Amino acid sequence: MNIALDVMGGDNAPQEIVAGAVDAARIYGVTVSLVGPPDVIAAELAQYSTAGLRLPIIPAKQIIEMGEKPVQAVRNKPESGIVIGSKMVRRGEAQAFVTAGNTGAALTTGILHVGRVSGIVRPALITPFPTQKGLCVILDVGANANTRPENMQQFGIMGSIYAQHILGVDNPRVRVLSNGEETGKGSRLIIDAYQLLAQTPGLNFQGNVESIEVMTGIADVVVTDGFTGNVFIKTAEGVAQMLQAIMREELKRGPVTTMGAFLAQSGLRRVRGRLDDSQYGGAVLLGLRGPIIVTHGRSKANAIRHAIRIAKQAIEQDLTQRVQEGVSGSMALSIAEFGKDAQLMTPVQKEPALYSV
Amino acid sequence: MNIALDVMGGDNAPQEIVAGAVDAARIYGVTVSLVGPPDVIAAELAQYSTAGLRLPIIPAKQIIEMGEKPVQAVRNKPESGIVIGSKMVRRGEAQAFVTAGNTGAALTTGILHVGRVSGIVRPALITPFPTQKGLCVILDVGANANTRPENMQQFGIMGSIYAQHILGVDNPRVRVLSNGEETGKGSRLIIDAYQLLAQTPGLNFQGNVESIEVMTGIADVVVTDGFTGNVFIKTAEGVAQMLQAIMREELKRGPVTTMGAFLAQSGLRRVRGRLDDSQYGGAVLLGLRGPIIVTHGRSKANAIRHAIRIAKQAIEQDLTQRVQEGVSGSMALSIAEFGKDAQLMTPVQKEPALYSV
Repeated sequence: MNIALDVMGGDNAPQEIVAGAVDAARIYGVTVSLVGPPDVIAAELAQYSTAGLRLPIIPAKQIIEMGEKPVQAVRNKPESGIVIGSKMVRRGEAQAFVTAGNTGAALTTGILHVGRVSGIVRPALITPFPTQKGLCVILDVGANANTRPENMQQFGIMGSIYAQHILGVDNPRVRVLSNGEETGKGSRLIIDAYQLLAQTPGLNFQGNVESIEVMTGIADVVVTDGFTGNVFIKTAEGVAQMLQAIMREELKRGPVTTMGAFLAQSGLRRVRGRLDDSQYGGAVLLGLRGPIIVTHGRSKANAIRHAIRIAKQAIEQDLTQRVQEGVSGSMALSIAEFGKDAQLMTPVQKEPALYSV
Repeated sequence: MNIALDVMGGDNAPQEIVAGAVDAARIYGVTVSLVGPPDVIAAELAQYSTAGLRLPIIPAKQIIEMGEKPVQAVRNKPESGIVIGSKMVRRGEAQAFVTAGNTGAALTTGILHVGRVSGIVRPALITPFPTQKGLCVILDVGANANTRPENMQQFGIMGSIYAQHILGVDNPRVRVLSNGEETGKGSRLIIDAYQLLAQTPGLNFQGNVESIEVMTGIADVVVTDGFTGNVFIKTAEGVAQMLQAIMREELKRGPVTTMGAFLAQSGLRRVRGRLDDSQYGGAVLLGLRGPIIVTHGRSKANAIRHAIRIAKQAIEQDLTQRVQEGVSGSMALSIAEFGKDAQLMTPVQKEPALYSV
């Protein structure tokens, strides 16, 4: 098993990226192909005892920076780690690719150079999200700025497969993110997507979920369009950051409070631990012919190590094949079940739906 | 000045609602018309010394429950507090209406019985949101499930007027919520709305804002469609609730941590105080011929009192008139400035835009 890793991606490259790769190679026994400038990688590797570990260096002399425009960057930098890593997956030289770099560039190169699973119209970015009862997954969180109901149906199928085979959830409960729990609530897009999801054979679809209810653990898979999903995860991250900043500020005022915070620090550390997302392994771009894992730009060694763990699981569980089967199986089943009326399932495909009212 | 109040709305009715009304009448010297069952209200009022306070009782024998379907409920319960309170505003018997009840019913009766300001296509629900540097306002947070770019342009105008006259912000910085900061980021709806907002005379429009940046205080007014705005505020609320639950759990483990939390309690209380939204006065339905203030269903006396304060400010600042002027002024100005090309400003009005890609 060979997992390609973008050594120069993210805020803490290359130190933390290489550190995570060394850990992952040791702990999981996988080959991690380090894609980046050979001299830089060699210098980093020299700091570790890597005897017996499989950490080949794959030269990539260009770097796509975090702020670059994805499509242009991918076009102009064919020798970047992101492009070379993806092409390794396409050619079967690696079975997955991990990057903490420019998300947009990873999506672009994924679609362009890895390619979509046949039948998947739009790949989706799926991410684990902590709830009071454990993890759920939410998709799409930003692969698509514009989404159609039939894309969201496929997100539901892919999310369900992911929850089952990567998180180990039996018969995952799938819900669609809306502005109210009741059936019929939502924008036109959501109402149409709801209909399609409800009619998808083999999917344990349980209706709408409000964002405030996601945190209670009511769903294993939350389906949403890429725009709303992106707002959702960035809102959650922003609020968590703000609360922690307010806590730090208020707990430092006055000696008694400071002493209290000192005594409570093991508890506060546990709180931070439960909020720490580095153990989750980051977001996965689903619907491609090989998984691309996109971890947070601020990823440190631990996050990189866990991203490689997710990549390993995705390969072992043959996630790509299962997505392929899931999408075509569900389609075949729909047609068999609904006969000629199967077309009715996707009324919006014939005519573009409106976002107007 | 007469402000109508729905006595039976919300989880803590009628006790906390009447308590808030008594406080508001005393502190702000306004008339608060208590709309609800006279015997219930009289029994509550009997607990306070209300000599000299103006707290007339307006009979309303029906109650719209929190879970009822808005349109049906408003139609079937013409004798409910929500309907009677709104009609008072329409007839000029009250200048604003406050409720902690069914938000959907308040919106429905607002549009149906209070009526829209001429020129306003879609009213919007605006709510204050705490940032690290004070408050911003965000709209629409749920009055509309489906939104068009030209609605969002009006949201920008109304939000700017609100920030200026209710929050006292000079030349409010207006941004549109998107999935990236850069111009050109966003769904088709957002990109079209961006264009319109950028061309609106008199508006201090500063481009996109990501949800994670909203909390840093980079904008005074955040414009969004009603679906995304609803997801935004409910996500923020859900995350804040979850973090507080995790804190409580972790700080109770073990005697040292518990002691620490005890010593730190004044700091933790300040944290809760900064998160407490009861002082903000709730959401306001803008674009109607009189303001309707919709506070959280869990509102207690303090939240009701502040909602009445916001109603008083809205009346004193003649918010309705300013919205009217803002919308028609901006339109007149656009036509004067852009001449015949003014039509170019709203290309999407001619042809329904798509949410498809």
